Amino acid sequence: MADGGEFGGAAAKVDEARLWQRHVDMAKLGGTPRGGVRRLALDTNDIAARRLLADWARPYGWQVSMDAIGNLFIRRPGTDNDAEPVLSGSHTDTQPSGGRFDGIYGVLAAFEAMEAIEAAGIRTRRPIETVVWTCEEGGARFPMGTMGSGVFVGRTPLADARAVADYDGVTVGAALDAARTALADLPERPLGFPIAGFVECHIEQGPILEEKGLTIGVVTGIQGARRFRVDVEGADAHAGTTPRARRRDALSAAVAMVSALEALFHDDPGDTVRFTVGRFVVTPNAPAVVPGHVSFTIDFRHPDEAVLTKLGDQVEPICKAHARACTVTVTQTSRGKPITFLDPVPSAVEKAAAGLGLPYLRMNSGAGHDAGPLQLAGPSGMIFVPCEHGISHAEAENATPADLAAGARVLAEALVELAGR
Amino acid sequence: MADGGEFGGAAAKVDEARLWQRHVDMAKLGGTPRGGVRRLALDTNDIAARRLLADWARPYGWQVSMDAIGNLFIRRPGTDNDAEPVLSGSHTDTQPSGGRFDGIYGVLAAFEAMEAIEAAGIRTRRPIETVVWTCEEGGARFPMGTMGSGVFVGRTPLADARAVADYDGVTVGAALDAARTALADLPERPLGFPIAGFVECHIEQGPILEEKGLTIGVVTGIQGARRFRVDVEGADAHAGTTPRARRRDALSAAVAMVSALEALFHDDPGDTVRFTVGRFVVTPNAPAVVPGHVSFTIDFRHPDEAVLTKLGDQVEPICKAHARACTVTVTQTSRGKPITFLDPVPSAVEKAAAGLGLPYLRMNSGAGHDAGPLQLAGPSGMIFVPCEHGISHAEAENATPADLAAGARVLAEALVELAGR
Repeated sequence: MADGGEFGGAAAKVDEARLWQRHVDMAKLGGTPRGGVRRLALDTNDIAARRLLADWARPYGWQVSMDAIGNLFIRRPGTDNDAEPVLSGSHTDTQPSGGRFDGIYGVLAAFEAMEAIEAAGIRTRRPIETVVWTCEEGGARFPMGTMGSGVFVGRTPLADARAVADYDGVTVGAALDAARTALADLPERPLGFPIAGFVECHIEQGPILEEKGLTIGVVTGIQGARRFRVDVEGADAHAGTTPRARRRDALSAAVAMVSALEALFHDDPGDTVRFTVGRFVVTPNAPAVVPGHVSFTIDFRHPDEAVLTKLGDQVEPICKAHARACTVTVTQTSRGKPITFLDPVPSAVEKAAAGLGLPYLRMNSGAGHDAGPLQLAGPSGMIFVPCEHGISHAEAENATPADLAAGARVLAEALVELAGR
Repeated sequence: MADGGEFGGAAAKVDEARLWQRHVDMAKLGGTPRGGVRRLALDTNDIAARRLLADWARPYGWQVSMDAIGNLFIRRPGTDNDAEPVLSGSHTDTQPSGGRFDGIYGVLAAFEAMEAIEAAGIRTRRPIETVVWTCEEGGARFPMGTMGSGVFVGRTPLADARAVADYDGVTVGAALDAARTALADLPERPLGFPIAGFVECHIEQGPILEEKGLTIGVVTGIQGARRFRVDVEGADAHAGTTPRARRRDALSAAVAMVSALEALFHDDPGDTVRFTVGRFVVTPNAPAVVPGHVSFTIDFRHPDEAVLTKLGDQVEPICKAHARACTVTVTQTSRGKPITFLDPVPSAVEKAAAGLGLPYLRMNSGAGHDAGPLQLAGPSGMIFVPCEHGISHAEAENATPADLAAGARVLAEALVELAGR
């Protein structure tokens, strides 16, 4: 080994208290009265999170830059700065009533790992970079998830992402221009560049690690997902005078559709299918008016591509079969195939967890993550840590300082391994 | 007869073109791109409608006044000004995406009738007043219907009405204070006073008159109504990771409740029950989050009090039976018994319609109206005219100038009859 000591030297410098305090500080940006966080993609709090991270990087002299989709990079140089860097990070945006760990943990763990590697005096061959990917949470503000990582790897054209509008009609382009103005001092990084690999720390967002009493999930892949928007068009009518036979009640039809879909997507006792109607908007939404329009979303995930195809293809015919007197339009808004993470990343994570003596499990991810699109740019993988009762996308989201630090230790060692000494 | 000629003299002076033009002018206040009207109770357009009416009254020298709940009165004196007046009118507020006739027709028909009586040179014993009742449309802005008429007759304490807040948290009290400032030149009328009777013109808002080819509905009563708010409390959770068995999905539970309620409230082939879920609000309403909260409304109407009791009392047990892993709270927000209009009003309306040779039908009202609460203050009744395809509470609402004028002619004669010569 070239420099900086033996295995475990970086992990030993991870500072649990510092890492926890940074979660506390970040949770103030968009903090809610019930202890959660509402920090929507590219809103003022999301921009403030980038600023705070850049401030923390300054004492180290690490270059901070931002690309055209708002992804932020903090670069610790290597001994060979022409070598492709190893990236680690996640996202700073949250769900509308989200928690203190989803996304931000991956960013803070990456930064903590870089600090620990620095404190250990380790010189790596490849540069290591902490990255914030823009707008991971699809539908929380903008109806496009893993946007920043998707644009970075070329999955999504920049112009397509900029054209996406939030529910108030504000486009990503307009929000990016405002972010760029607020962070005008950060150099512009060209969009997309070759990488040697990507590792993302994240809370599990599910119950498995907690139930099994394990500390680390070595993530081997991400289940596939299909998302749909269903628009039901009926006719507004007076609730007191309009007989049922003359109604074109969009809510009544939408309820029938959701009931029928729930029956189809029910797979007890396996309970592997994930089917969610998370957004359901009624127009005009007045108590004395038969609703003339309903728009709802379907989020369907499964680890098996064949099941994604078979069940997902029935969404439209089932909606049409229950449209009653209304008309219905079904639009598939996104489709992601199941992803398998490729070595050397999962093996580097497993080696680090084993080497540090942490109890771990090789496991699949139920949630989508930036590591999914990143797999298109280079070998990627993830490190999970437990979260309380498996709760996430909720203000009650919780994790322990010890588990968060354990994940950062595994990350620090995996990054040293991947970047080379 | 004391003065002003024979039966039909007032009706002959009703000016169809003038009445239609006033509908066109009023439809500009809150007019929507699709030809409807959005004029929510006490918003700037609703205040502007009061101002426009007051401007039209000025040439006649009729006193215009406003009471503490924002009801506006235009008074044509009688020969005995100590006698209780006969009132006619309706409301200027609309549903969020409402039409050009619901409410405003009753106001403009009353004003047209007063102008016609004036033009005919008829002196009535009792004063006649055109009235605008504040906030008839419950739930369109403020969750309280027939508010102004309800406060006028003492059904609702003024303080209770002022405390009601809209969906943005603005109270009726604050909105009233703003209206009072904007209309500061209008004298304040004491709240509530004895009346001799009340007659309200309105579009039918249902299909019966059109289907039967009739011009006038002599309204004999209003069906009863019970309204409920249902709050379903679950827990936000991640859509990709949370197994069905661990979910507390408020939307899924709410859909099950609505399905079960629809089955119970289904009375084919009678089709007399009116059951509507018009408002349905999901929180946090994000595609990738299992919804933790749903709040929805139920509007249930029927002409038979026994049915209102029997079916309505099952709302809460059915919701509780389908709550699954969620908790549910059912609140009855209002209950109105079926109302029977008392003579001399319906008979005066029928006599006028028959005398003018207009084809008419004695009929019940499916919708609630200000004439309902007014029955508590004195004999009340209504005059219906047809509306296109029975459509109302919708931008597509339509009626013909000829039918609107026919209703105003019946009203003019009924008012002369009730006010006495």
